[in-house]
This record gives sequence, C-alpha cells and structure tokens, in this order.
Amino acid sequence: MRQASDELQIETRGQGLFEITDRVEAWVADSGITTGLLALFVRHTSCSLLIQENAAPAARRDVERYFARIAPESADYEHNDEGRDDMPAHLRAALTATSLSIPVAGGRTVLGTWQGIYLFEHRRAPHRRRIALHLIGD
Amino acid sequence: MRQASDELQIETRGQGLFEITDRVEAWVADSGITTGLLALFVRHTSCSLLIQENAAPAARRDVERYFARIAPESADYEHNDEGRDDMPAHLRAALTATSLSIPVAGGRTVLGTWQGIYLFEHRRAPHRRRIALHLIGD
Amino acid sequence: MRQASDELQIETRGQGLFEITDRVEAWVADSGITTGLLALFVRHTSCSLLIQENAAPAARRDVERYFARIAPESADYEHNDEGRDDMPAHLRAALTATSLSIPVAGGRTVLGTWQGIYLFEHRRAPHRRRIALHLIGD
Repeated sequence: MRQASDELQIETRGQGLFEITDRVEAWVADSGITTGLLALFVRHTSCSLLIQENAAPAARRDVERYFARIAPESADYEHNDEGRDDMPAHLRAALTATSLSIPVAGGRTVLGTWQGIYLFEHRRAPHRRRIALHLIGD
Repeated sequence: MRQASDELQIETRGQGLFEITDRVEAWVADSGITTGLLALFVRHTSCSLLIQENAAPAARRDVERYFARIAPESADYEHNDEGRDDMPAHLRAALTATSLSIPVAGGRTVLGTWQGIYLFEHRRAPHRRRIALHLIGD
Repeated sequence: MRQASDELQIETRGQGLFEITDRVEAWVADSGITTGLLALFVRHTSCSLLIQENAAPAARRDVERYFARIAPESADYEHNDEGRDDMPAHLRAALTATSLSIPVAGGRTVLGTWQGIYLFEHRRAPHRRRIALHLIGD
C-alpha cells in the first residue's frame, strides 16, 4: 500500500459546471496505483464538487438554473462584502459537496457510464480553483 | 494494511429510501478487516446515498416528501428525454450524497445508534443500482 | 502506512455552526501521521458537518438562516415525536454532509485559507455530539 497526492488547478470562466473527469483519470493513471481509494477535496467555500450526468448539456444547464433558483442572488443576505453572488455561492457549496471519495479499480475510477466529475463554480468572475487529490492503494 | 473492494447490487422498486445497512455490515464483517475506512460510491446520477434515521418510518416518508417538494417533477426543465422524473432525479442526487466515508472499528462501521445507510432511488421505475464498496485497513 | 482513529465529543448549545477546526488539526498533529487521508463522520442524524467560510460571522448567520428557511419548522411533517425541530433537523442533515474526506500534508489538513470545519447543530436543545475521526497515512 502506498499513497500519491497532488493539486489540480482549474481556471473557471464564471458560474457553471466545469468537467474535470479526464484530468482526474489521467492523474490516477500516472500515479501507477491501480486499486485504491481516491479523495477529491476542493479548497474553497464558493465553489464545490458534483458528480453529474456527463452526456446531456441540457441536464447541466438545468442543474445550474436549479441552484441559482434555490439559493438566489436576489435574497437579502447579511454577508455581501464581495457582491451579490458571494453569499449564494457559499450556500450552493453547502448544498453540494466539498469532498468526494471514489474507489479506483483497474487503474481507473469506478465512475458509472453516465457520471462525470465537475467543479461547480458559484462566483460570477473567473477564478483559479485548487482541488486536492489523494490516492491510497496498490 | 490491506484493502477489499466489491460492488453491491440493489433492486429498487421505484422512488424512495432502501436500507442497505445490513448488507454493508455483512460485507465489512466478511472482509476480515476490523479497523479501517469504508467508502461507498453510487455509480449513478439519478439515485444517491443517504444516512438517515433508521427507527421511524414516518421520518423516512417525510424525507421522501421533502425532496419531492424542493426538486419537483412539475417544474419546467429543459432536459426531459426520459420523462418528468428524470431531471428532478439528478437534482435530488446533487442535493444528497454520491459518496460516503465511514470509519470501521471492531469489525463494524461506527454508525450511531439511530443511523442507517440508505440508497435513495429518485426514479419512478424499478432499477438495478450498483454501489461500489472499498475498505482499507487492518 | 498506518492508521489512527478517535472520537471527538462536542457540546453544542442549540442550533448553529460550531467550529471544530482547531480540535481536528490538533488531533492530526498528535497522530504523528504527516501525509494521508482524514475522514470525519458524524454519528447522528440531526446534526451534520459543513466546510464553510471561517472569517465572516455574518456568512455563518446567513447559512443558519438559509437552512432554517429551506427546511422550516413550520412545515407540516408526519414525524414530530420529539418536537417541531425534529424533522427539519433530519432534512438539514440530509442537505449537508454526514462524512468528509480531507487530505493531510505536512502534518496538517489541506483546508484552504478561508475554510473551517463546522459541526452544524440542527436541534434547539444542547447536545453532546460525537464525531468519528480516522486517519490513514505515513
């Protein structure tokens, strides 16, 4: 048993889902660990991680619209130092995931056929986002 | 330190919470690993994992009704290739968990007295669902 | 590779976010494991875990008000054996996290600058809450 760790940097271009599946799979393959457990951890509180449908762009647009509606910018928040999109970003992050654990088998994650891994950017401005990767296995 | 992995197959009978605690505990016991970390990962985007109250069926019905209400079928989604329950299924999955990490001690998970592990089926039709299990420990 | 495990006990004083970052970091430092993967698992269904903004108290108050609004006490739940705050507590727990996985590097978690780890108490009465910690690494 051994471990590998790294940090993925993602340049976002405003709110929305950015797929990182290929970069994660490439890193797993490079690690040489073929059976194990992969953890992803996003080091921010205004973006998050999401496993979602990877085939239909319409489904991703519906996801984006849904989170814009249940944690809206128009609501009256106490915390708004960084603008109207600041507090809803924290709420949308709280409703989704900061960390994910994905088993690895045969040198790949066990993602299902229709699953992709996404960074969910909740701020309007482009950001450089950092995701810690950690893999334990053989 | 060593690891064990497997896939649990669950036959769902339409929307709702299906308890898998006993099957998970049985698998942990069979693995022979008594201290470690268990990961569960559901390989689909229209069902999810949930740790919930395992005693009161009324609590589980309230959970089901709540998610039906905050991510309703009646909403006007762009993505509806597979029917009205398709997009709300992805949203309910996004609001709950795709992966869980549960420590194992004394040959059992450290679930609290009132905690059960559930597969949360979000589609109306029965499905065969696959959950990857991965356990690292001694 | 080795592992360490423990249980953190937190005394809550009613609903709200209770920061546990310092206690978690102290435990990681004491473990002697400097590179690895940390899992936190809350052993209850009426409180949860949340990674949130650690600088602005106003942001945390907004988070508390938001969850009070999307899973309100005033709603008409079937399960209310333990009072009006019982069922909303389970719903708020379902919407946030029961488990977190955080990589450890250099003897500390890789939490970002603005991230804190919080126990999110959803019941009105004070409770003693138990969080299982598990760390695998070198």
